[in-house]
Amino acid sequence: MSSPHVCVIGAGSSGITVIKSLKENGISFDCYEKGSDVGGNWRFKNDNGLSNIYKSLHINTHRDRMEYRDFPMPKDYPDYPNHEPIQAYFLSYVDHFGLRKHIQFKNGVKKAERLPDGKWKVTPEKGASKIYDVLVVANGHHWSERWPDPAFPGKFSGKVIHSHSYVDPKTPVNCEGKNVVVLGMGNSAMDISVELSRPGVANKVFLSARRGAYVIPNYLFGKPLDKLTEVMPTWIPFSIQQFFAHLLIRFGVGKMEDFGLPKPDHKFGSAHPTISQDLLVRLGRGDITPKPVIEELKGKKIRFADGTEEDADVLIYCTGYNIKFPFFDEDFISAPNNYIPLFYRMFKPGIDNLMFVGLMQPLGAIMPLAERQGKWIAQYLKGNYHLPSEEEMLDWIKEDQDEMKKRYVSSTRHTIQVDFDIFMNQMAKEMERGKKRTPKKELVKA
Amino acid sequence: MSSPHVCVIGAGSSGITVIKSLKENGISFDCYEKGSDVGGNWRFKNDNGLSNIYKSLHINTHRDRMEYRDFPMPKDYPDYPNHEPIQAYFLSYVDHFGLRKHIQFKNGVKKAERLPDGKWKVTPEKGASKIYDVLVVANGHHWSERWPDPAFPGKFSGKVIHSHSYVDPKTPVNCEGKNVVVLGMGNSAMDISVELSRPGVANKVFLSARRGAYVIPNYLFGKPLDKLTEVMPTWIPFSIQQFFAHLLIRFGVGKMEDFGLPKPDHKFGSAHPTISQDLLVRLGRGDITPKPVIEELKGKKIRFADGTEEDADVLIYCTGYNIKFPFFDEDFISAPNNYIPLFYRMFKPGIDNLMFVGLMQPLGAIMPLAERQGKWIAQYLKGNYHLPSEEEMLDWIKEDQDEMKKRYVSSTRHTIQVDFDIFMNQMAKEMERGKKRTPKKELVKA
Repeated sequence: MSSPHVCVIGAGSSGITVIKSLKENGISFDCYEKGSDVGGNWRFKNDNGLSNIYKSLHINTHRDRMEYRDFPMPKDYPDYPNHEPIQAYFLSYVDHFGLRKHIQFKNGVKKAERLPDGKWKVTPEKGASKIYDVLVVANGHHWSERWPDPAFPGKFSGKVIHSHSYVDPKTPVNCEGKNVVVLGMGNSAMDISVELSRPGVANKVFLSARRGAYVIPNYLFGKPLDKLTEVMPTWIPFSIQQFFAHLLIRFGVGKMEDFGLPKPDHKFGSAHPTISQDLLVRLGRGDITPKPVIEELKGKKIRFADGTEEDADVLIYCTGYNIKFPFFDEDFISAPNNYIPLFYRMFKPGIDNLMFVGLMQPLGAIMPLAERQGKWIAQYLKGNYHLPSEEEMLDWIKEDQDEMKKRYVSSTRHTIQVDFDIFMNQMAKEMERGKKRTPKKELVKA
Repeated sequence: MSSPHVCVIGAGSSGITVIKSLKENGISFDCYEKGSDVGGNWRFKNDNGLSNIYKSLHINTHRDRMEYRDFPMPKDYPDYPNHEPIQAYFLSYVDHFGLRKHIQFKNGVKKAERLPDGKWKVTPEKGASKIYDVLVVANGHHWSERWPDPAFPGKFSGKVIHSHSYVDPKTPVNCEGKNVVVLGMGNSAMDISVELSRPGVANKVFLSARRGAYVIPNYLFGKPLDKLTEVMPTWIPFSIQQFFAHLLIRFGVGKMEDFGLPKPDHKFGSAHPTISQDLLVRLGRGDITPKPVIEELKGKKIRFADGTEEDADVLIYCTGYNIKFPFFDEDFISAPNNYIPLFYRMFKPGIDNLMFVGLMQPLGAIMPLAERQGKWIAQYLKGNYHLPSEEEMLDWIKEDQDEMKKRYVSSTRHTIQVDFDIFMNQMAKEMERGKKRTPKKELVKA
């Protein structure tokens, strides 16, 4: 086949590395981006109407593990920089590889339909619909707010926001001098409760948790913790890795119950980890008061599952995100309960000209995984990778889901979970297998 | 002798526990306090004109190790509360033991002179001079600012303050959006640089250190670190304790150099420890930039010893305190270079009716030590403790100084250093020895 024409939705950290590979391999494409610049979720005050990160956000994966392998981060970057140097890094990536001119900024995709001949009819916000051979979806999964379902009984008379709209202690709701209840045990709940509990910010901060989590620091034993895990060979069975990790956390971090938090109902490693260097000491200093889950909203008061009631002015739901594809007809492709069955989180069996990129929640960073996906897509479109049969793909998905069910606590948080190092390896192996599936004469020089 | 009449200078955390013991033992006394309430240094916005703590100050000794042994802190206190519950604890201590009516508030001591007959002539700020048999000095040692001497060459055109006057990021100097240089490696330098480096506070924070220090966290391995040390019996020689402590810190906290800090020029334990759960991760996140000591002030710029120069708006000296006794004639008693030779940090050889209380810098909290000093003073004044000869006291002082010189880096920070558990023990033993020195017939029922 002649080189296909590709549509890439989104120029966040996943989209830009895909188009870098497409460009390098001479594959023609259009990239649509809702915002006025690249960076997606990492772009502070992004004008795409979707992304919104808080001012105090720092990466919690070490920069060496976050960087694209083809474009190292500047060596003078700190271990865990805040979002500004990260966004600067994306800008220099785009400039270095000459990608900017290939992106249509301020022009998102309104609609993407699969035509009877299998091609894609893409309708952008501005301009006429266009036909593409291939569609790459890199629209991100940290923008559609997830709220407790069913909602807590009762009515709260204070201000309510989702962590997604939290910017800083004064924006969008002024929390200064207020009593704030933060609900959740994920990374946003940690960062926001720690920030609000600083002297002179909120009056009182309550951290309400439905279930226990292991809160691990960035640094353990003076070393970046996520770099410690690199020394563990991926061939060691998960159960053994988990045993040692559990021991390490138990010894190095301590018991969550000692800090007033609920005891996790799972072993370390069976849930996406929550990273905070600050939370435990804030609890120990009495700056944050731990609470069980909310039981009832009672006007100005909130009652918790242990029967205690607190006066509250602000309630912040740090309850995660939904996976959404607003440009698809919901009956065609959607992710109910955040579940979408994909071969290697990328290919939907039965539709061989559609790829999802960055649709993962790794123990580690998405960027190097998306970078590999970009290379994979380029090889695929050049004919150097052949997909297995639909049946084989469905088998892989089933096996993977079974594995994940054994491995992780059942939760909408874990539907797209991957183990960074293991998945990097598995992707490389599958790319090799797909190359072998390719008839010899078809192979194009990479 | 009939019960002596005692003057106590100061109703901070040392003064109140002394008068508690005096009262319990039926010894008459007056207590003069410059401020309008007790608490001394722990009283936020104290109106005594001396004390000034910052709003974000938390205790960094575990509450169990800080509390008076005769009056436990409330069990619902967090491990390391901020100053408010601590001050509330002092207020309830004073109320519980009925001490308030014995304190003359808003009336400090202007002058204390020793008369030829050995009695004390005390001149308060308000009212006439009075004669006392005994003088107890508990005037604190965290109020007279110490500045680098000689001062750094050059002139700085920005704002300059000492940590003593620091209240919060806006007071007394607005640091918001500013470039701030914090000089020092003690606890104030940690707390202030961490507070200012929060997103949305200072623009840039530089931490300038003359020498390296071990920055240790409140919690290590999930346990309050200062409670970990309790398990070490005091009879184990210091060098062996130091070996294990050094190992623990090296393994549990890591190398200071890995975070860009100067390498300490001493072993762990040879300097008063610097406690901060937050500093290292702030360095790792790039929120604080480490710098060597200041070399020159150049108007709006500050040059550091490595030759780098930075634009700065505010310079905060976290360079400690002088020991001062403003009510004494300087030729009579003073502490040049913070050194004052005292038997058990309390008795000045040759003046047997003068005692200093709380004039220590422990690895731990002053309060239980001052409490024991209060009991000791009461026993002494009842005749149940006899001092050794002046010569023996001078010998003890010399030995103690030699010991401290071997033990600690030479610095004005370590002139009044004591090892909490060891010193508690030593005091108890000396009280026993002094009891044995007492002629039998003199012993009064304790």
